[in-house]
Amino acid sequence: MNAIKKDIPNFITALNLISGVVAIILCLSFNNLELAALFIFLGAIFDFFDGLVARALNVSSPIGADLDSLADVVSFGVAPSILLFQGLWNISCCPWSAGVALLIGAFAALRLAKFNNDTRQTTSFIGLPVPANAIFWIGFALSLPMLKELMGLYPLNILSHILVFFIGYLMISEVPMFSFKVKKISFFGLRYQLILIFIAVLSFIFLKYLGLSLTILAYILLSIVQNKLSK
Amino acid sequence: MNAIKKDIPNFITALNLISGVVAIILCLSFNNLELAALFIFLGAIFDFFDGLVARALNVSSPIGADLDSLADVVSFGVAPSILLFQGLWNISCCPWSAGVALLIGAFAALRLAKFNNDTRQTTSFIGLPVPANAIFWIGFALSLPMLKELMGLYPLNILSHILVFFIGYLMISEVPMFSFKVKKISFFGLRYQLILIFIAVLSFIFLKYLGLSLTILAYILLSIVQNKLSK
Repeated sequence: MNAIKKDIPNFITALNLISGVVAIILCLSFNNLELAALFIFLGAIFDFFDGLVARALNVSSPIGADLDSLADVVSFGVAPSILLFQGLWNISCCPWSAGVALLIGAFAALRLAKFNNDTRQTTSFIGLPVPANAIFWIGFALSLPMLKELMGLYPLNILSHILVFFIGYLMISEVPMFSFKVKKISFFGLRYQLILIFIAVLSFIFLKYLGLSLTILAYILLSIVQNKLSK
Repeated sequence: MNAIKKDIPNFITALNLISGVVAIILCLSFNNLELAALFIFLGAIFDFFDGLVARALNVSSPIGADLDSLADVVSFGVAPSILLFQGLWNISCCPWSAGVALLIGAFAALRLAKFNNDTRQTTSFIGLPVPANAIFWIGFALSLPMLKELMGLYPLNILSHILVFFIGYLMISEVPMFSFKVKKISFFGLRYQLILIFIAVLSFIFLKYLGLSLTILAYILLSIVQNKLSK
């Protein structure tokens, strides 16, 4: 019974990884980017619950933490990377220019290796967390056809390249980012989180998928502002 | 200069991960399983050299070890899983029965989480290592059309399901497996390794790709024999 209890969180983490693999297949074999994005979100739900269940059952373990990273690199590193790859390929009819997308998985792995065992991260993150990376690319990849209409293929390709390195750099940077894990719940203590939720809702209503990417950019900006003000 | 030196092994590990992602794209977008298999092998070469370079430059680190696992789960867990998935899909014209292949990635992640920080593993492994898992599935996936001719679709589907659980179980099992890292080079001390090389060469000559899978089965068998005899 105890052995089964111990394995429940790991089973949930495995479901996170499998969700990521399903997202990859939906992108590349079925060219269904929206459904793929949903599976990445499903992975995020499993990712949220595995830790929660492990703590509730009091079976947190180093193996569980390692497994978590291994699932995260697939669901929030490789899967978004493939999502952007397929999105860029769709708008440009050529897989080569989409190759830059593959770096996202490598940046995510670097981040997970560098920061997952970083004890400085308790109620805040250092660098952009990988689920935020996933949300950014879901929004961007799903908005590519609209962005192509708006700004043309060539500038969009350049923008994609810049963003891959910008988001990649932020993941492995030492920039402090606030989290939703707070010690004490108060309106003032949660002001940055509340502003972000407000931006997220508004931008999703008006810009649909692109709102997801803008929310992550707002998150980065708000974190920098919070950091400057608290000094 | 020192910072660059420190990053060289991590750069090589990142190339391992990217090779795995390229293999996944070659499978699903181009249905080119042979080229995908070559990229998994390329990943294995990077995997071999990152540790070697880290030790040579004296820059081994816990971050490097973690990054190694994160790349391995993609190249030797998810990529072989996708290879089998596409292979099964090709012979059965239906993606659903191929779904069992997705478990390979989850088993590989469980293995990496469970054993990568296991200090008992020095000159031998406990359970089947993930590169051996990758070699097994490369051989099996590339031989699927031939196996279908030989035994028919339905029995082959059942065999695939059994093998996924058998190889998956071996990865997370406590079965001791010998390695090629030996303390002292002698003909007698290396007898199991030499028998395995002999089987690998012979089976590859006579059975081509299927020889890869048979070599891994021989490796499992020889490890069990060695283990029984040394008791």
